[in-house]
Amino acid sequence: MVIMTSSTTFQPVLERIAEEIERTPGRGRAADYIPALAACDPRSFGMAVAEPDGTVYGVGDWRQPFSAQSITKVFTLALDLAREGDALWEHVGREPSGNPFNSLVQLEYENGIPRNPFINAGALVVTDRLHTRTGDASGELLDFLRAESGNPEVTFDKEVAASESAHGDRNAALGHFMASYGNIDNPVPVLLEQYFRQCSVTASCADLALATTFLVRHGIRADGTRLLTRSQAKQINAIMLTCGTYDAAGDFAYRVGLPGKSGVGGGIIAVVPGRCALCVWSPGLDERGNSVAGVAALDRFTTLTGLSVF
Amino acid sequence: MVIMTSSTTFQPVLERIAEEIERTPGRGRAADYIPALAACDPRSFGMAVAEPDGTVYGVGDWRQPFSAQSITKVFTLALDLAREGDALWEHVGREPSGNPFNSLVQLEYENGIPRNPFINAGALVVTDRLHTRTGDASGELLDFLRAESGNPEVTFDKEVAASESAHGDRNAALGHFMASYGNIDNPVPVLLEQYFRQCSVTASCADLALATTFLVRHGIRADGTRLLTRSQAKQINAIMLTCGTYDAAGDFAYRVGLPGKSGVGGGIIAVVPGRCALCVWSPGLDERGNSVAGVAALDRFTTLTGLSVF
Amino acid sequence: MVIMTSSTTFQPVLERIAEEIERTPGRGRAADYIPALAACDPRSFGMAVAEPDGTVYGVGDWRQPFSAQSITKVFTLALDLAREGDALWEHVGREPSGNPFNSLVQLEYENGIPRNPFINAGALVVTDRLHTRTGDASGELLDFLRAESGNPEVTFDKEVAASESAHGDRNAALGHFMASYGNIDNPVPVLLEQYFRQCSVTASCADLALATTFLVRHGIRADGTRLLTRSQAKQINAIMLTCGTYDAAGDFAYRVGLPGKSGVGGGIIAVVPGRCALCVWSPGLDERGNSVAGVAALDRFTTLTGLSVF
Amino acid sequence: MVIMTSSTTFQPVLERIAEEIERTPGRGRAADYIPALAACDPRSFGMAVAEPDGTVYGVGDWRQPFSAQSITKVFTLALDLAREGDALWEHVGREPSGNPFNSLVQLEYENGIPRNPFINAGALVVTDRLHTRTGDASGELLDFLRAESGNPEVTFDKEVAASESAHGDRNAALGHFMASYGNIDNPVPVLLEQYFRQCSVTASCADLALATTFLVRHGIRADGTRLLTRSQAKQINAIMLTCGTYDAAGDFAYRVGLPGKSGVGGGIIAVVPGRCALCVWSPGLDERGNSVAGVAALDRFTTLTGLSVF
Repeated sequence: MVIMTSSTTFQPVLERIAEEIERTPGRGRAADYIPALAACDPRSFGMAVAEPDGTVYGVGDWRQPFSAQSITKVFTLALDLAREGDALWEHVGREPSGNPFNSLVQLEYENGIPRNPFINAGALVVTDRLHTRTGDASGELLDFLRAESGNPEVTFDKEVAASESAHGDRNAALGHFMASYGNIDNPVPVLLEQYFRQCSVTASCADLALATTFLVRHGIRADGTRLLTRSQAKQINAIMLTCGTYDAAGDFAYRVGLPGKSGVGGGIIAVVPGRCALCVWSPGLDERGNSVAGVAALDRFTTLTGLSVF
Repeated sequence: MVIMTSSTTFQPVLERIAEEIERTPGRGRAADYIPALAACDPRSFGMAVAEPDGTVYGVGDWRQPFSAQSITKVFTLALDLAREGDALWEHVGREPSGNPFNSLVQLEYENGIPRNPFINAGALVVTDRLHTRTGDASGELLDFLRAESGNPEVTFDKEVAASESAHGDRNAALGHFMASYGNIDNPVPVLLEQYFRQCSVTASCADLALATTFLVRHGIRADGTRLLTRSQAKQINAIMLTCGTYDAAGDFAYRVGLPGKSGVGGGIIAVVPGRCALCVWSPGLDERGNSVAGVAALDRFTTLTGLSVF
Repeated sequence: MVIMTSSTTFQPVLERIAEEIERTPGRGRAADYIPALAACDPRSFGMAVAEPDGTVYGVGDWRQPFSAQSITKVFTLALDLAREGDALWEHVGREPSGNPFNSLVQLEYENGIPRNPFINAGALVVTDRLHTRTGDASGELLDFLRAESGNPEVTFDKEVAASESAHGDRNAALGHFMASYGNIDNPVPVLLEQYFRQCSVTASCADLALATTFLVRHGIRADGTRLLTRSQAKQINAIMLTCGTYDAAGDFAYRVGLPGKSGVGGGIIAVVPGRCALCVWSPGLDERGNSVAGVAALDRFTTLTGLSVF
Repeated sequence: MVIMTSSTTFQPVLERIAEEIERTPGRGRAADYIPALAACDPRSFGMAVAEPDGTVYGVGDWRQPFSAQSITKVFTLALDLAREGDALWEHVGREPSGNPFNSLVQLEYENGIPRNPFINAGALVVTDRLHTRTGDASGELLDFLRAESGNPEVTFDKEVAASESAHGDRNAALGHFMASYGNIDNPVPVLLEQYFRQCSVTASCADLALATTFLVRHGIRADGTRLLTRSQAKQINAIMLTCGTYDAAGDFAYRVGLPGKSGVGGGIIAVVPGRCALCVWSPGLDERGNSVAGVAALDRFTTLTGLSVF
């Protein structure tokens, strides 16, 4: 077992993981509900580790941009929480849902208040509130990601956003449904446009690992300014751990043991509080929508380094 | 007890019912989700009986137009069934829902196929299909109602349709949700416009009782042409009895014992197969959305005449 | 089409139906959760019609005893309603459930009050209440069936009752679950014994058609005494029509158009109010637990005679 | 802020927390479904911290025995997992439920496989399996607790067990319901007796904190023998964090940030992996069944010491 010490770089462990993943058969299937995702090679693999000082280690396709999708829900949540504080929690809960990410059932039983900010309904509420506060939720998100990653090429993929919109009936249903309970401020079509644009963010493992380091630094941005209080940063970590991987949060906690958030583009970000942020990408998904090789790589990472929170 | 014989007119029994209703305190509350309905006097009351030959008896406000709302679902169903036949039943079921009229829960568990044509989701499907077949679902409906009632003043209330649309998030959610399962053909906004226009039909008890007589005549229209087969007419009666009054179909069958369909405008139509059609109107609703005085009046009608199906 | 007149006997129509059923392939499968039912030949077929004066017509295996199962829920309901009146309805509803007959889901959302007396949960409540009032619910039932059918050989099948009990975990769950809401008076094991004994009633089509004639006579028993008020008899017919065939009540109303109640033994009773009672038996079931040939035979009966309520 | 260093004892922080709790109004209400719990003073408060070497610090009523209730689910899970390994997970899941601890709804939708070992249904499955393997599940549990705590007076409270049994309809429903899906091996009454006996364990904060230290030591018992693999110990911590506090696991993770398990007796155990185990007790519960002062004390503990996992 490779136990990391503070003087060790993460490079050797990343290379070892990449070798193991390379030898592993079975990668799942890329999401196929929109063409841009279906076109991805399910065997692509990249992984990056970012330290709080901005040092990044990487392996494989770690510099290749991919569709961040639901990973951006973490950043939108942070940006709204920074502005709104605890008032947000009157509009969205913090509990695991025990249901698929796009289910309407629980929403009906709980009167239009989504269970948490990482299921689609909850992310719609957070986007709606950020948009009300800033007038441009997706612009805020993009500015943040570019600043934290230091990469001005992080961008929206207009084709992906258009595809999402064309296949967006389920999200439209969620939006109108919550609007019927008075839990959406903006017109639903405006909200959906903002939401799909956020889903279309294109960034690399390096970019997203760096953008996640504010959670490693307990709320401090790359430029040293404070985005969140220490307590708020801890809270986002807690929500990632309990709700970050759709209806597989228990399994992810069990295997990986880190706060994490996955996207259907095949990316997963994870946080080792106080130590480092990770981003792994491989487009092949399991039946619950999480990257097969991505979860396996994070599992190996915590086993090899001992850096699980448990 | 007044037992009707074939030579008796229905006028005396209607007058007796009106007197009893007049003396009864408690009328419920008019629907208040749109202004046009909330403005109705909950104590208004009208009732009409139409015989197969076109004779109409009436009492109270039986000639005053009111908002037909969900009552029109019966006619839209008949018009689509006439064109499409049993193929319709692959897209909507015929079972009671056991859930509120606008619930999404069951729809999710049953993969976007609504339980029956009289819950909102099912009526949206029927409207969608009729619109595909005719290019103008609401126009078809209006033509039918004018022809059967002989009253060219039956019309849409544009203000009501606009109000429905402005408060239409729940129906928009249902439409997009079913579209996400591939069970809607037209663009959801087009479908909703058609649907809300149908809900806005304004007609009197006399008009609606006459328009319902095709079910008394086992499928024959007022002009003697056949709209539905005898079997299809019987089927619509069966669906009205099991599903026609939201989540109170059992109670309605228990008290009234006739196929019926209610609307939140306070109207209820009912059928005595082979004998007559009824329409009663009083805007005050019970907690399940059915007219309080309307159900009471129909209850008295079947008790006084013995004309229950049971 | 054979249209019945009041001077016609039902014998020819029964014989015609039997011939048609004989030629029809596909009978479904007999229930196999207990050995006594699984042993039945799915191609057995019998049908009886009983007139209010006690005249019985029959065809096929109409005198062969079979396991009445849930058909007895109608008689237990009548016996309790006769004693308790409307107070019963505080403990069990009258609405279609929209869920399988043994579901616990709706029961939880509705706090232990079953939807209607014909799903298992509701029948347990009715049995519990009758047992509290009489000290011997199943004995009351047996006395009633023997008296109405005039057949002292109607009896319990101890082997069936024992098998039901051995496979009774789901019903035990329902009983304990409602007890946890305070909606069961007797100890659950006592209740279950009573319930399983009722399910085990063995009687023929002739016996059960005769036992159902009290509903044709609007509440009057075979000996001329009144069991139920006219209104109560009508109410039981209404509940049979809306809730009598598990989650296929809409389909049964649509095809057959009569109040009916089926059992997993393959029997179905039905009522033509004021005219006659029917019982058909064929053990092969469809996927919703109703006799395939039984539903088909009743469908033919109402088509041939015009005796649907619609 | 008091930041702990490795040379600091936990005594000062415990005393500070006790003072703060003492000054805090509002303690919730003790569970009242059985007399033994209802009799507890909701203002009682005790807290203990146990280090891996067996050192225990305590404050308040930390040596007073109380009813451990669902806290014992952690130990039963560990004992079965030690014997059975991953085969257990075919019979119970590892995902948060998103539903109340005693709900049957999800169980029905998921065919009798409970969501996780800490909702009642899941704990029944674990007890059933341990009982099959040992012939005495509750005896195994008691031996373990006495050995780890070093206190032979840890015992069952027969009165509590009898009360649980007398109010056990909901758990009986769960047991029979899962048995109907084939997911229970032992007769349900035998299982329930074992289960209620486990719930009745009476032990102090000191006892339970010590008994939890095997999770701090990554699976090693007090006597140095290995109960669980390092990976299994980590897995139990993960399940505690995502599922340990009923439908408030997200909130607990958010506020406290430690793996924890609560009981309706007012106790909560928690783990700081590698560092220490905690047990806090105060009988007043919030509406989700967790100790009000207990959660507050753990919240203060992680804030004051920085010993959250996030």
